[in-house]
Amino acid sequence: MSIKYVYMFKEGNATMRNLLGGKGANLAEMTNMGIPVPNGFIVTTEACTLYNSLGKKLTDDIKKQIDACIVQLEASSGKKFGDPNNPLLVSVRSGARASMPGMMNTVLNLGMSDAAVSGLAKLAGDRFAYDSYRRFIMMYSDVVIGVDKHSFERAIDKYKEGKDYNSDEDMTADDWKAISEQFKKIYRDDQGKDFTTDAREQLYGAITAVFDSWNTERAFAYRRMHDIPYEWGTAVNIQEMVYGNMGATSGTGVVFTRDPASGANRIYGEYLMDAQGEDVVAGVRTPKDFLELEKDSPACYKEFVEISTKLEKHYKYVQDMEFTIENGKLHILQTRNGKCTAQAALQFAIDFVKEGILTEAEAIQTVDARALDQLLHPMFDPAALKAGKVLGEALAASPGAAAGKVYFEAKDAIAAKERGERVILVRMETSPDDILGMEVSQGILTAKGGNTSHAAVVARAMGTCCVSGCEAIKFGNGTFTLGGETIKEGDYISLDGSTGKVYMGDIPTVPAEIAGNFGTFMGWVEKVKGAMAVRANADSPKDALKALEFGATGIGLTRTEHMFFDADRIPKMRKMILSDTEAERRAALDELLPFQKKDFIGIYEVMKDLPVTIRLLDPPLHEFMPTDEATFVALAKDMGKTVEQVKDTANSLHELNPMMGHRGCRLAVSYPEIAQMQTRAIIEAAIEVKKSKGYDIKPEIMIPLVGDVKETRFVKEIIEKVAKELVAAAGVELSYQIGTMIEIPRACLIADDIAGVSEFFSFGTNDLTQMTYGLSRDDAGRILKDYMDNVIYEGDPTARLDQTGVGQLMKIAIEKGRKTNPKLKIGICGEHGGEPSSIGFCHKVGLDYVSCSPFRVPIARLAAAQSALTGDKFD
Amino acid sequence: MSIKYVYMFKEGNATMRNLLGGKGANLAEMTNMGIPVPNGFIVTTEACTLYNSLGKKLTDDIKKQIDACIVQLEASSGKKFGDPNNPLLVSVRSGARASMPGMMNTVLNLGMSDAAVSGLAKLAGDRFAYDSYRRFIMMYSDVVIGVDKHSFERAIDKYKEGKDYNSDEDMTADDWKAISEQFKKIYRDDQGKDFTTDAREQLYGAITAVFDSWNTERAFAYRRMHDIPYEWGTAVNIQEMVYGNMGATSGTGVVFTRDPASGANRIYGEYLMDAQGEDVVAGVRTPKDFLELEKDSPACYKEFVEISTKLEKHYKYVQDMEFTIENGKLHILQTRNGKCTAQAALQFAIDFVKEGILTEAEAIQTVDARALDQLLHPMFDPAALKAGKVLGEALAASPGAAAGKVYFEAKDAIAAKERGERVILVRMETSPDDILGMEVSQGILTAKGGNTSHAAVVARAMGTCCVSGCEAIKFGNGTFTLGGETIKEGDYISLDGSTGKVYMGDIPTVPAEIAGNFGTFMGWVEKVKGAMAVRANADSPKDALKALEFGATGIGLTRTEHMFFDADRIPKMRKMILSDTEAERRAALDELLPFQKKDFIGIYEVMKDLPVTIRLLDPPLHEFMPTDEATFVALAKDMGKTVEQVKDTANSLHELNPMMGHRGCRLAVSYPEIAQMQTRAIIEAAIEVKKSKGYDIKPEIMIPLVGDVKETRFVKEIIEKVAKELVAAAGVELSYQIGTMIEIPRACLIADDIAGVSEFFSFGTNDLTQMTYGLSRDDAGRILKDYMDNVIYEGDPTARLDQTGVGQLMKIAIEKGRKTNPKLKIGICGEHGGEPSSIGFCHKVGLDYVSCSPFRVPIARLAAAQSALTGDKFD
Repeated sequence: MSIKYVYMFKEGNATMRNLLGGKGANLAEMTNMGIPVPNGFIVTTEACTLYNSLGKKLTDDIKKQIDACIVQLEASSGKKFGDPNNPLLVSVRSGARASMPGMMNTVLNLGMSDAAVSGLAKLAGDRFAYDSYRRFIMMYSDVVIGVDKHSFERAIDKYKEGKDYNSDEDMTADDWKAISEQFKKIYRDDQGKDFTTDAREQLYGAITAVFDSWNTERAFAYRRMHDIPYEWGTAVNIQEMVYGNMGATSGTGVVFTRDPASGANRIYGEYLMDAQGEDVVAGVRTPKDFLELEKDSPACYKEFVEISTKLEKHYKYVQDMEFTIENGKLHILQTRNGKCTAQAALQFAIDFVKEGILTEAEAIQTVDARALDQLLHPMFDPAALKAGKVLGEALAASPGAAAGKVYFEAKDAIAAKERGERVILVRMETSPDDILGMEVSQGILTAKGGNTSHAAVVARAMGTCCVSGCEAIKFGNGTFTLGGETIKEGDYISLDGSTGKVYMGDIPTVPAEIAGNFGTFMGWVEKVKGAMAVRANADSPKDALKALEFGATGIGLTRTEHMFFDADRIPKMRKMILSDTEAERRAALDELLPFQKKDFIGIYEVMKDLPVTIRLLDPPLHEFMPTDEATFVALAKDMGKTVEQVKDTANSLHELNPMMGHRGCRLAVSYPEIAQMQTRAIIEAAIEVKKSKGYDIKPEIMIPLVGDVKETRFVKEIIEKVAKELVAAAGVELSYQIGTMIEIPRACLIADDIAGVSEFFSFGTNDLTQMTYGLSRDDAGRILKDYMDNVIYEGDPTARLDQTGVGQLMKIAIEKGRKTNPKLKIGICGEHGGEPSSIGFCHKVGLDYVSCSPFRVPIARLAAAQSALTGDKFD
Repeated sequence: MSIKYVYMFKEGNATMRNLLGGKGANLAEMTNMGIPVPNGFIVTTEACTLYNSLGKKLTDDIKKQIDACIVQLEASSGKKFGDPNNPLLVSVRSGARASMPGMMNTVLNLGMSDAAVSGLAKLAGDRFAYDSYRRFIMMYSDVVIGVDKHSFERAIDKYKEGKDYNSDEDMTADDWKAISEQFKKIYRDDQGKDFTTDAREQLYGAITAVFDSWNTERAFAYRRMHDIPYEWGTAVNIQEMVYGNMGATSGTGVVFTRDPASGANRIYGEYLMDAQGEDVVAGVRTPKDFLELEKDSPACYKEFVEISTKLEKHYKYVQDMEFTIENGKLHILQTRNGKCTAQAALQFAIDFVKEGILTEAEAIQTVDARALDQLLHPMFDPAALKAGKVLGEALAASPGAAAGKVYFEAKDAIAAKERGERVILVRMETSPDDILGMEVSQGILTAKGGNTSHAAVVARAMGTCCVSGCEAIKFGNGTFTLGGETIKEGDYISLDGSTGKVYMGDIPTVPAEIAGNFGTFMGWVEKVKGAMAVRANADSPKDALKALEFGATGIGLTRTEHMFFDADRIPKMRKMILSDTEAERRAALDELLPFQKKDFIGIYEVMKDLPVTIRLLDPPLHEFMPTDEATFVALAKDMGKTVEQVKDTANSLHELNPMMGHRGCRLAVSYPEIAQMQTRAIIEAAIEVKKSKGYDIKPEIMIPLVGDVKETRFVKEIIEKVAKELVAAAGVELSYQIGTMIEIPRACLIADDIAGVSEFFSFGTNDLTQMTYGLSRDDAGRILKDYMDNVIYEGDPTARLDQTGVGQLMKIAIEKGRKTNPKLKIGICGEHGGEPSSIGFCHKVGLDYVSCSPFRVPIARLAAAQSALTGDKFD
């Protein structure tokens, strides 16, 4: 039996979205609900996939199925394709599984021909008929065949000039008829053949044009941006035409069942009487507010309000609808879930629960976790934004809006901040050296680096707006050029980290408002049983406070290295690194100990009884080295060495592939004294806070980059020895744990062994992804671009967890780890811990918690609750 | 029931080597064969492991088991510990599973005390007894307790001075008695307590000393060098003393049952009458050739010859034996398989087969595959080598011996070679830029880089001697210093790539001789059915010829990038890389095409009907960039660009982690035209040779660094399109294949998908190991050192395949790959393909072939045959 590739509306329903596309599935659903929808049929997404896989060929089988539906449509409408008395005219629209604005425009009035136009004329008058005819020829030639539409527009202009007409209003039926003939000639001249008047041929052409529009650059770009797989394909909807421009009792409109910006509960939209859909959006005539329809067409108004309420209840969401009134009869052309602001989404959720349409659990599912971000960061004043000049666009690396004066060096940024300026730090790329400069900045702009570059990761953790990988930037001397403008140090620019846009000048921002609805909603989220815990990554008491405020129930990652960059610490850190002997190193470490201890005390005092996971020193040591001569000279003097000696040691730290070099627990193996100092700081701080405040401090000491069980045991023993001695000497009970980051592939493969010496695992999916792919995130910019352009990758695996490859390693690690140690606590602290689809995966594979930057905690909590509610777990 | 930790000799046998150690198992075996072995017992390796894991504690249980064996030994000998009439005296020797020269010295005469010495005096005279006593005190104090033995030696010297004696011969029984008393005083002064005369306490002390000697730096170093796991532990052998120094009818000797250097079939060794074992090796008296024993002690001679023949037949290998004759009675103290040169090992194999002791298949198992290397490379003249001054020692990266004048730059090396000089290239590290300089060199010495650094890998492929990672080298201006000497450019040094030693001066070498035995032996190897195929990695016709000569049955890896470094090609390559447009790039590629084609024609003509796997361009493009100003200037001129422009483009290729950057098939995605050119060269060359010579050329086009199935398909389609067109146009049948390197972890995890579009897999275990470990081989030097010093790693995973982690990924890939594509051909072309234990693993997991550098082909063939003979396969 052949596969069914074409469905009449009545054969489908809303659950068939993947096969029929969103638009088609909803038309089918409404048809079966008894809602007045013009009849039609749908060519499926599978037909599109087949078409693409056959090298753009529409099979005879599919054509035959289309023909059969045409016959049904003719029967139900009583019209016929090309009938000179009662012609069947249809619209052809694309309809993918997800809404795709990058796709083909609609073709209206398909089926038009010299014969059909005379039929239409009998029903609606000559002028209407020939106007429709010329519109169809132009639309079909442009959209389906690709003839330049300006040739057609020029012909009309010339015709009107010749007749001395001022506007289209002056054109008579005969004029439009003459234009139709001219249009057919333009087509013939361009294509070398006649414009087809065969309705079936037109239809096949329009359908393949929809399929082809799946393969345009625009479509690729849109899919890339929205993570839509190429394989989904698009469906095509063929629907009987209805006309809103048949006179005073006809009309058309586009509405939301509630306000998609504010969330207010009123039908929100516009309509025009005696008009076609395109007129409403074109702006030639000013459309009316939907509520006025009550006066213009009371019966249709009443019917529409009833339908909209019915649909809202049916779909349990705000609907985005199109309607047409033809000679006083209402037709619904489309309904779909409305896109709205995060603020409105929250309002809908709250109201729908109040109205009894949704349960709290259902309401939780209606809010896109990613959208919550909008509520947590400042935004540009929308009015002011319109006037802004866009200089360029790059990766939206960390959300929010910011404006400030441009500075190129961290130290200049700090000085400017001290003068009370707002600062935007602009760098080729950032390094740990820039941390303090980043901290004082409103926003960060980098020319290099992807979504998980240093700048992006740190900015997100700080909640600071960041646009990264803006490769069009050219740096000059104290300037940069972008979008044809040269920006000097001290000039204002504005960044939108949610869109990736860079603007000239100082655009005012409005602060985030966490309104009452947010609290109510997160309260429901909190109630969801079985959700994974959500912790935050936090390196300071300030971060920890923010994390608590957003509802984190622990710290999943404290990076101890960030603590070493303060001006009063970095010289000591450098002395430690450049020591020639263990004794020298220990002396320098002794100086660092009090600082590190103070940091931990601060974090513990905020987190109180909640767990705090602290990672031992992780980055390669050369990241701490100075780059300027003066610092080297000062350092050498301080250490009683020659500048040469100090530089030699610094140079010897250089690595060809530092990402896979001397870092992580490898540092603890080479320099156990570093791990000893850090353990001492962690444990002594915990003991002090426990004694002074009485909190049940729960430090979790995390060993990074393990790949071997003996290595893990080696480092664990270093930690354990110090910790046990301190705890015994203090005479307190302290429930600390020792665990490991799981971030290199081998660690996953031997997780059964590692779990034997670990109390917890925390997946470091940033590094795990890089190593599993053999792809350095710092160097991935060009590669990812080429891969996405060629549809090899649909998205950036460093932003969205690769469930197939990296996920497989995670599953291996979880299964093996829990086999050896059933009590093993497992979490994730990579960037993916704050990305909703990745969080869904984490829930499925049974993680105990996710950890992400404080600003993503609400997102993660919502995503975790949503996953828990769908309840699907792997075995 | 408690575990048995102590075995009497009669309770063991040769198969219990892991538990009883090599020496102990053989003593047990001989005991049960009825060979005259002094009785004794063995404390097991498991006791050692327990001792170590308990923090160096000998449990009461083990002590009890030892005591029980002492009782048995007393019963069988009729002697008693500490008996003043007939004292039991024992030797205590270490005995690990593998021979470990780094271990504890033997303790003789244990059980000695004031009481026992009087008993011994009754049996062997006062002088013998007290001489033995003082020897024991010194030996025990030194070896077991750690008292400085010079104190004892000084005491004897002083005593002899006082007595005006010239030598030990002058010492009387009373003198030795007095010395014994002095020795006990020295011990007491040093240790603050009396020398123990309790035989059991002495024994426990000696046993723990043996265990402790497993933990010395020497032992660690030896194990590291020989890949012996720490967990094996050592056993301890306790054996009744016999004396070769009891007079004219006593004696002792050390022999091989055949000549271990030449392989000649004659008993080879030395003995001394009236002497102890140490006298034979000490060189004070000149020992006699074993054959003279026939005159000195005809009965013992005859008995020994019979025993040696019996043992050779029993163990089916040449034996390394120790014997003692006590008052005319022969005792065998040890037998073990003899260590011998590769040449001798071959001779034994040939002779044992002739003598019917071994089958050919058994003989194949007797030759250590690694040792074959010795036969394939030049060696230093042993006489001349003794006079050489060692400057330093580093990694034995590529075997062979070489001497030549030092040059620091590839171009200087080339110039010197052209002047007819022999050259040693000395570099910080090498890069592809140095290839031509490496080719003209006799040997290569680098200061940085491990066993799989660029220098090491390329040198092994070339069969050129290389010592790498010699970190002690300090470079000066046209000089380097090492081992306190400063070597100038043009000075001679000599390198031993088999030991890693660097010598001063020009040490003569002797060429390798592939004698007739080698051919016979490899003939047997060839006959082993079911062995994996062995291919070679070869980048030139010269390499390919060498590969064929050594018995390769195909090329498993041709690296196309090496072909681009010739002086007449590199400028074109650079132009290609620095092109701004695809058109520019295509023009440069057109210029490279004829060169690349010529390379392939050369290789095909050598390999004829055998398969040749050619890998598409793999390294990051910046590796091809010049580093000197002049070349940039010339390049800019040639390309009609400014120097700035060219440098900007070159700089933009810089990557932070190039190993995980824009390389491998990622280049083919970004620049399909490169893959197209290479495919054209591969296929056109194949068609031409097929047409002109009639060979059935079998090119296998290999896509490197794949990690995604769409990526694989994308590149495959580029290749396939070009290949199909060329083959169709030529009108020939060409059986080419398209396959993938499997070298990044994700490729293993999704191998089922990749196998759907691949005809073969070739594991690139160099990169796979690096990424699975997250460890860059270029940066691993310091890390590996620290890891081996701390017994975290036993060996270098880049040299010896990590079967636990990397091997697990390989098994996943094989299983998944064959599931999708049962005909999938799977090989390995990483460095591990020439390492015997890794080859064994490859056989077990069912690989179709291994590929290695030509010089390792015989090793790989032998290792493959050995694996096939043991026949163990997974599932």
